[in-house]
Amino acid sequence: MSTTPSSSLFPALRREVRETPESGIVEVVNYGRTKPGLIGLWVGEGDEPTPAIIYEAATRSLAAGETYYTYQRGIPDLRQAIATWQSKHFGRAFSPDHIYVTGGGMQAIQIAIAATLGAGDECLMPTPTWPNAAAAMGVAGARTIPVPMSFGNRGWSLDLEKLFAAVTPKTRAIFVNSPGNPTGWTATHDELRAILAFARKHGLWIISDEIYARFYWRGDGERAPSFFDVMDPEDRIIFVNTFSKNWSMTGWRLGWITVNPSLGQVFENLVQFSTSGVPVFNQRAGVAAMEQGEDYAKHVISRAREGRKIVCDALAATGRVRITPPDGAFYAFFAIEGKADTRKLGIEIVDGANVGLAPGDAFGLGGAGYMRLCFLRSPGQLTEAVDRLTTWLRR
Amino acid sequence: MSTTPSSSLFPALRREVRETPESGIVEVVNYGRTKPGLIGLWVGEGDEPTPAIIYEAATRSLAAGETYYTYQRGIPDLRQAIATWQSKHFGRAFSPDHIYVTGGGMQAIQIAIAATLGAGDECLMPTPTWPNAAAAMGVAGARTIPVPMSFGNRGWSLDLEKLFAAVTPKTRAIFVNSPGNPTGWTATHDELRAILAFARKHGLWIISDEIYARFYWRGDGERAPSFFDVMDPEDRIIFVNTFSKNWSMTGWRLGWITVNPSLGQVFENLVQFSTSGVPVFNQRAGVAAMEQGEDYAKHVISRAREGRKIVCDALAATGRVRITPPDGAFYAFFAIEGKADTRKLGIEIVDGANVGLAPGDAFGLGGAGYMRLCFLRSPGQLTEAVDRLTTWLRR
Repeated sequence: MSTTPSSSLFPALRREVRETPESGIVEVVNYGRTKPGLIGLWVGEGDEPTPAIIYEAATRSLAAGETYYTYQRGIPDLRQAIATWQSKHFGRAFSPDHIYVTGGGMQAIQIAIAATLGAGDECLMPTPTWPNAAAAMGVAGARTIPVPMSFGNRGWSLDLEKLFAAVTPKTRAIFVNSPGNPTGWTATHDELRAILAFARKHGLWIISDEIYARFYWRGDGERAPSFFDVMDPEDRIIFVNTFSKNWSMTGWRLGWITVNPSLGQVFENLVQFSTSGVPVFNQRAGVAAMEQGEDYAKHVISRAREGRKIVCDALAATGRVRITPPDGAFYAFFAIEGKADTRKLGIEIVDGANVGLAPGDAFGLGGAGYMRLCFLRSPGQLTEAVDRLTTWLRR
Repeated sequence: MSTTPSSSLFPALRREVRETPESGIVEVVNYGRTKPGLIGLWVGEGDEPTPAIIYEAATRSLAAGETYYTYQRGIPDLRQAIATWQSKHFGRAFSPDHIYVTGGGMQAIQIAIAATLGAGDECLMPTPTWPNAAAAMGVAGARTIPVPMSFGNRGWSLDLEKLFAAVTPKTRAIFVNSPGNPTGWTATHDELRAILAFARKHGLWIISDEIYARFYWRGDGERAPSFFDVMDPEDRIIFVNTFSKNWSMTGWRLGWITVNPSLGQVFENLVQFSTSGVPVFNQRAGVAAMEQGEDYAKHVISRAREGRKIVCDALAATGRVRITPPDGAFYAFFAIEGKADTRKLGIEIVDGANVGLAPGDAFGLGGAGYMRLCFLRSPGQLTEAVDRLTTWLRR
């Protein structure tokens, strides 16, 4: 047996991979996960399992023996169902040729990165934001240029001049997550137009993550403003999406890319050479979600709407929290007076309130000093959680 | 609307991605797939669906609501089941800390590449071989150096001196697929030791694809020689594996990596930032395969053994085919007298024999001039297929 210390292998890995960050919330989750009675609101998922109307489509497919290799682009039924659903909700005609099924929103992002960003390339990214996209860019050898948003009386906002000033000759893409996780920042149509005009001028790609589009709380629109509303077909935009949020399917790892059909073969290849497709039976559940899941999606969205009110009202009433009800998504991202070290604060809240929140440090530049709370939960659970938090804050 | 031609988007993609190859068998598959009565033996999968004893574990998990996010490394039950199975079959003690669940063997390879090969790096690869690993390296910006094997009276062999001579200062890894697809080449223990010694000397990683280990026809061993038999724990070897072949689970996209536990956090990160894990319910089927699937795996293996005999005997008897029964895997990879252009030949065989074979050109340097036939099929189907082929050959 070798006598080399076990750490000898690590330095032999690629530098970019040695530098991949661990999840910034893992420390507090590991600290608190086994605490009896803890209410964990640190992760971006609801508390309901996938409904039977959706998962039974997978069960039937399994029993029918649909367990073979399949289309790399996704089964035709699912691509059609997504195209139809997206046409309905985004007021634009989509065909299956626009749609490429992926193993979750994360794989959709990874593939969008592979298509556009290589070693030494740069991507502009408003922060704070979900950290995985930047980390995946790091694995690809690309560099993320964070552009911090700011938090004011009207919530989180992005200074477009600051975004545009960050461009360099190495910039290849802008990653836009609107409505945004964790901030809830939601671009207006004017902002989307301005970003698109800038991207056109500099020949940049836009990777548009609109997975929270239907969790939209501003005005009475059915969904948030989308690049689909303002783009031309030939614009360099890759849309990433997921079944996770609308239909309580986080664990299914099922998502899709929408892109100009002329790039279809490239995206097929990128699926082929990464995961070689998504199980047919899981895709059947996706068809059920798209075709029969609208009532359930509305239920999920209205639960988030109610959760937002419960959490934001109660925390604001304490007078010790800087919070503005977010325009979109299902997170409260707020600061607590006198608590700047939010990594420590996460542990303190586990101990003091038996509630699990994610420290804002996990979400990149501009996130430190804030805590993220996922309010896609039952009203009862949220009421209990904010009771505990407000009691703890007031003592 | 823009007036730019649709092709304007393609040149804006990353060069490495514009250059990804399409599957080399797609041409003949597209040509033949709808032909009535065609027997397609071009793909590497059997003709049985996943058995109930395995898929019903997924069904139960779905009904139990296991539809949430889960462990990036794989659920503890599955990592334990794989460790136990692998300890039994590879005569070495594995713990769950060695095991990382992936979305198929392909994702296992992609992650192994991400860990070791970046832009400008080189990987040695004996060919002909399954093309996806090289293509994934291309997406990562790395370069594959093909080292063609040769075909003689005793079958396919690898000239180790030729392999070693291909090393350059940019070489970071050797990809070894033994038993090999499509050739059936299976390294001896001496060959594995020599490759390992060379890798140690040059500080190279070995990515070892032993997914066909139990499809082994030489001597009476239960499985092919493995790097597990000759390595030290600190050797730079990443093993990739899949549930696809042993248990008729090609469509499940379920595989695993075996690696030194000291690298666990890195591999967890690489899963997190690519697909964010594998559905729990699919992993439950993996547990069932590992714990209750041995009889079924033996059935699959014995079917392949029988198929090998049917195909190799019948084709050899024509006197027009250069074929040697392969030492491992479940493919016949053979040349037909006077037929050098195997892309054309694939079409010709569809038209003339109503059988679908994969042209050897698809498998890289050294593959042209050969055809691949998958013999993991029912004896009846194979008998019919070789009858058609021999009739066509003799006319």
